[in-house]
Amino acid sequence: MADLPALRPGEIPLPGGLGPAADAGLHFIGRIRTPWARGDCPRNIAAARAQMSGARIELDPRLAPALTGLRSGQPVLLLYWMHHARRDLLLQAPKHVDAPRGTFALRSPNRPNPIAASSVLLTAVDVTAATLEIDAIDCFDGTPLLDIKPWIETVDMPPDRA
Amino acid sequence: MADLPALRPGEIPLPGGLGPAADAGLHFIGRIRTPWARGDCPRNIAAARAQMSGARIELDPRLAPALTGLRSGQPVLLLYWMHHARRDLLLQAPKHVDAPRGTFALRSPNRPNPIAASSVLLTAVDVTAATLEIDAIDCFDGTPLLDIKPWIETVDMPPDRA
Repeated sequence: MADLPALRPGEIPLPGGLGPAADAGLHFIGRIRTPWARGDCPRNIAAARAQMSGARIELDPRLAPALTGLRSGQPVLLLYWMHHARRDLLLQAPKHVDAPRGTFALRSPNRPNPIAASSVLLTAVDVTAATLEIDAIDCFDGTPLLDIKPWIETVDMPPDRA
Repeated sequence: MADLPALRPGEIPLPGGLGPAADAGLHFIGRIRTPWARGDCPRNIAAARAQMSGARIELDPRLAPALTGLRSGQPVLLLYWMHHARRDLLLQAPKHVDAPRGTFALRSPNRPNPIAASSVLLTAVDVTAATLEIDAIDCFDGTPLLDIKPWIETVDMPPDRA
């Protein structure tokens, strides 16, 4: 726990969190390679896109066949694991909000299950090498990947926007 | 494994899957209550919406304060756990595709980390009761919930659509 973020004024944890996280287990299926480390990571994905830096997904080679059918130019939803997050926060006070807000009303990486979700564009697909290139993303280099899904308007846009 | 889906012609598993799933652990933070059980679940979320049936989220009451700031009418991204899925499939042959396709090119529940993602609309928020009502969703009654995030256009729409 030593490198987890410290509590800010107004932030409320659940003492002890939810306990051992043992309801289900995750596989890290690859890593996201980005130009970013702690201290120079863009504030959000829009800022990462503005830098036009690109990023690469290095999938576990055993899973290479599971990329079959993905193509450059296709939008995908990525799920990845924020391994430096706190999992016990109920109310959080990030710098950009006026008053502490509930964890589920924020996109903060600090949440009971620190799974991040971003919708990105594939710019290259190499099934043999088990790699994908994407337009941009705002996570640290080496972030563990959990899933890749085709982005589908009827599922990934809420009904008032679709 | 007894109740997992059987392999269809053309489907290819990774023998033994990725092994014990222990890179990280999940908390089930609540349950999604829907009208659907195996056999009568809509094919997709659009079909569920057409039935205008609604659905309810019952959050772990210890996490109730983490709903603070969510409001009715707001779009949210839900992540939930498809606990009846196979985790070893590389190529899959669902009925709606012509030829077997890679797992990461499909929204099938069968994937190394069976996390589903759907964007829905909040229709009621009760922080005290730790419940949310949503417009619709296409999962079985009792599906374990993993996360609730505010839906944000710049994160949840790919750059060619935003």
